[in-house]
Amino acid sequence: MTVESTVENKGNFFEDFSVGQEIIHATPRTLTTGDAALYMALFGSRFALQSSDFFAQSLGFSVSPLDDLLIFHVVFGKSVPDVSLNAVANLGYAGGRFLTPVFPGNTLTARSTVIGLRENTNGKTGIVYVNTTGTNQHGEVVLDYARWVMVAKRNPDTPAPEPVIPTLPAAVAASDLRAPEGIDYKRLDASASGSTQLWDDFEAGMKFDHRDGVTVEEAEHMLATRLYQNTARVHFDGFTQKDSRFGRRLIYGGHVISLARALSFNGLSNGFHIAAINAGRHVAPLFAGDTVFAWSEIVDKAPLECRADIGALRVCTRATKNRLCANYPGARDDDTDGLILDFDYWLLMPRR
Amino acid sequence: MTVESTVENKGNFFEDFSVGQEIIHATPRTLTTGDAALYMALFGSRFALQSSDFFAQSLGFSVSPLDDLLIFHVVFGKSVPDVSLNAVANLGYAGGRFLTPVFPGNTLTARSTVIGLRENTNGKTGIVYVNTTGTNQHGEVVLDYARWVMVAKRNPDTPAPEPVIPTLPAAVAASDLRAPEGIDYKRLDASASGSTQLWDDFEAGMKFDHRDGVTVEEAEHMLATRLYQNTARVHFDGFTQKDSRFGRRLIYGGHVISLARALSFNGLSNGFHIAAINAGRHVAPLFAGDTVFAWSEIVDKAPLECRADIGALRVCTRATKNRLCANYPGARDDDTDGLILDFDYWLLMPRR
Amino acid sequence: MTVESTVENKGNFFEDFSVGQEIIHATPRTLTTGDAALYMALFGSRFALQSSDFFAQSLGFSVSPLDDLLIFHVVFGKSVPDVSLNAVANLGYAGGRFLTPVFPGNTLTARSTVIGLRENTNGKTGIVYVNTTGTNQHGEVVLDYARWVMVAKRNPDTPAPEPVIPTLPAAVAASDLRAPEGIDYKRLDASASGSTQLWDDFEAGMKFDHRDGVTVEEAEHMLATRLYQNTARVHFDGFTQKDSRFGRRLIYGGHVISLARALSFNGLSNGFHIAAINAGRHVAPLFAGDTVFAWSEIVDKAPLECRADIGALRVCTRATKNRLCANYPGARDDDTDGLILDFDYWLLMPRR
Repeated sequence: MTVESTVENKGNFFEDFSVGQEIIHATPRTLTTGDAALYMALFGSRFALQSSDFFAQSLGFSVSPLDDLLIFHVVFGKSVPDVSLNAVANLGYAGGRFLTPVFPGNTLTARSTVIGLRENTNGKTGIVYVNTTGTNQHGEVVLDYARWVMVAKRNPDTPAPEPVIPTLPAAVAASDLRAPEGIDYKRLDASASGSTQLWDDFEAGMKFDHRDGVTVEEAEHMLATRLYQNTARVHFDGFTQKDSRFGRRLIYGGHVISLARALSFNGLSNGFHIAAINAGRHVAPLFAGDTVFAWSEIVDKAPLECRADIGALRVCTRATKNRLCANYPGARDDDTDGLILDFDYWLLMPRR
Repeated sequence: MTVESTVENKGNFFEDFSVGQEIIHATPRTLTTGDAALYMALFGSRFALQSSDFFAQSLGFSVSPLDDLLIFHVVFGKSVPDVSLNAVANLGYAGGRFLTPVFPGNTLTARSTVIGLRENTNGKTGIVYVNTTGTNQHGEVVLDYARWVMVAKRNPDTPAPEPVIPTLPAAVAASDLRAPEGIDYKRLDASASGSTQLWDDFEAGMKFDHRDGVTVEEAEHMLATRLYQNTARVHFDGFTQKDSRFGRRLIYGGHVISLARALSFNGLSNGFHIAAINAGRHVAPLFAGDTVFAWSEIVDKAPLECRADIGALRVCTRATKNRLCANYPGARDDDTDGLILDFDYWLLMPRR
Repeated sequence: MTVESTVENKGNFFEDFSVGQEIIHATPRTLTTGDAALYMALFGSRFALQSSDFFAQSLGFSVSPLDDLLIFHVVFGKSVPDVSLNAVANLGYAGGRFLTPVFPGNTLTARSTVIGLRENTNGKTGIVYVNTTGTNQHGEVVLDYARWVMVAKRNPDTPAPEPVIPTLPAAVAASDLRAPEGIDYKRLDASASGSTQLWDDFEAGMKFDHRDGVTVEEAEHMLATRLYQNTARVHFDGFTQKDSRFGRRLIYGGHVISLARALSFNGLSNGFHIAAINAGRHVAPLFAGDTVFAWSEIVDKAPLECRADIGALRVCTRATKNRLCANYPGARDDDTDGLILDFDYWLLMPRR
């Protein structure tokens, strides 16, 4: 069953979803070098592959691919008006895979399939599980992920649907990871990329304090979130938010992920691609005026099938607000003061 | 008579204008996908035609045209150093017509003709009426509009000129509207554009609360206004503005128009083009920290000559600050609390 | 001797530098029309050559070159992680020359050679002199300049190196200036550029109050500085800066230079190229919320060899914060209240 997007309405409520329902999200988006420049200005990322066409070409790309998280945010943003406009909470992501690089000039569309539903016992809300895909203008899926959100019911008296809870992977299997084809990462120029440390040099258990901190302004997170055409009101409407639990605008959780990823260059300079998002937990909200720090831990590593030039590192990046990361906050469950993000992903890094 | 631009001087005073005078405004401007990305980050517009090259091509465009209001702001901005640097007030617009789409890579120039002058009875100021045109690098006029501003006199003792008050239309006639040629809007993919509601479904009297609100930051309106190379000091110079009537920077009125237009996607998703600006009234100023809401009323509709694929809707969009629009503020003359903008324009929307 | 970049480490300390050492800075950067649009939004520059491809082509360029200061900031930014991450102070620039225009699509790399070292008598810091070059993807040097910074020692007990103090020019000789080749600036359209005043009309001693003022926001200077991939923590980390001497984020000095350059259009509209940076002194820091004003003085003029179409003006541009420039602050040594920048450079301007 295919339904049209409902963006001009008041968003979907829990009752509006049914398992198997497919939603085509509105407003396809052509990404350009203009978006890449804005993403640079917003996060200051320094990974050479996304920064230099010349560097990208030296590995076999036509031009620099766009940042993986920019793709994620754009696809996610498209799903907001249909999936989470009436969300009480974004509960999690799982099984995210980046399947094809996206280049300036590519046009992305997004669609979601409802893969699970479970009403909460209070009868006022329910959990909606969707699988969302982003597709380029050639029909190639560029990104595929599951997420689940708590959505308000329109009417508490509506009977609960039969609960369907999908099986979601704790992590993407290394054998399911894809590296860009036709590229030879052995040609890496380490003086350009900023580090001679390659996949071979990393082991599970290694920790890196990314050291730098960045204070976030209201104008910045709103520029970013609008760039993704994400319309969630809590990020923009300071007037209505005055009466909310936090009394102010909430920063889009993806903003924290992008900030942490940019900071992670200090330690993971050759981590060119995010191949998979295993899980992302927004431990606490971030507000304008807060300063974000981050650290990462290598939790696993795996070669990629048929690829001697690039391998995968499973990384857990944690971000804090207003707390330095020299002693790795969040590494122990009882030390989560200031922790705002726990992001578990597979990073691809060239091999020696 | 043609005079050179006077941007390096102190701007023109009322005495410097004469009816029939033509002013070539300085600094032609090539617009690019970079400008489109910034405009997206600033306003978060979701109209599919301006967002997706692929969607635009499906209708017959080569690529996505740039947002009509971006064109307006750039042309308007060029006229500021010559026309309104010494303006006491921007009084109004009329007869604005968008004549040719503008695409990334096009270069715009602007010129104005003085079409009216009237000294005020206080002898200190006068009203200057200009007709301003924006032209692309092929010499095609892309935008044509009249505006009138109250300008200070250099010397109150200068004798008043013979008053000339131009006849300006209350609204652009539907027969004067132009839709892009060579396009077939019947090919519209409603799942991409976000709505199945087309021109046929709208009737005069319909009202739409656009629902979302957006809080504005100083950094945002200044980034926008500089992007248009608009140099009006009141928007940028907080130091001097401390001693002004409002004690702070004023936000460019066009910023409100663009915010309201982006919000209007909720209800007018297929309103792809602004064909004409009938009138625009900035009822009250907007300041950083205020939250903008908007609603629209359909006030008229008209088919376009020789076009079965697209028609015109005359829309009045009203914006407020710090006030929700559920009860349509400004719909009655005695309910203008929080009203900041009353914008009357012709929108083009595909037909069934 | 060539060493790899050390960006993943804690930056270089005084002991890490040796005279003759060559540092290849990480992360090459392709600049695009997206960067040009952002630079426009950040500074609102109105010089016709950088604003209009059509205007640029009328002089013989393929398209508009990128702003010279954008090039400077990007090259400078690349050197920060290796040269000045542990800098106590940026002391000065000298001998900066812009050698080749940079166009959208060009990729820049940067490298520095240590040309001098001198430990301070306190034993805790030393002065590092570097010559930094920016190179395009064809291997052409686009920018070449010297700078010196005070850098902390890792260990005060390390013995001081033999002092080497390079000879740096007080100003670039006019005979060393380069104007773009194959261009005929005589074709200038003064109605487009905004002024009929050309090189011939300027004389040493002339002063110009650029009049406009611009208030700076935290979001703006951070967006700009990240666009240049400049990682100096003092600009971004408000949390750590609370305990610093100023108690808050410091604005990158180059931001002030770009603001002053954009303001200088009022008076120097045809000053299309910065050919050389003779010296730049950041007299006092700028903070968010301050309003910047600027004025310029012509201090010398020189024809260029083999060029009848364009000449050089040596300009000193001074910027202030929260002080108007009508009486030229900084013109006298005892009138430096509010002065923040003293920037000495060679400007190229078309001749009659």
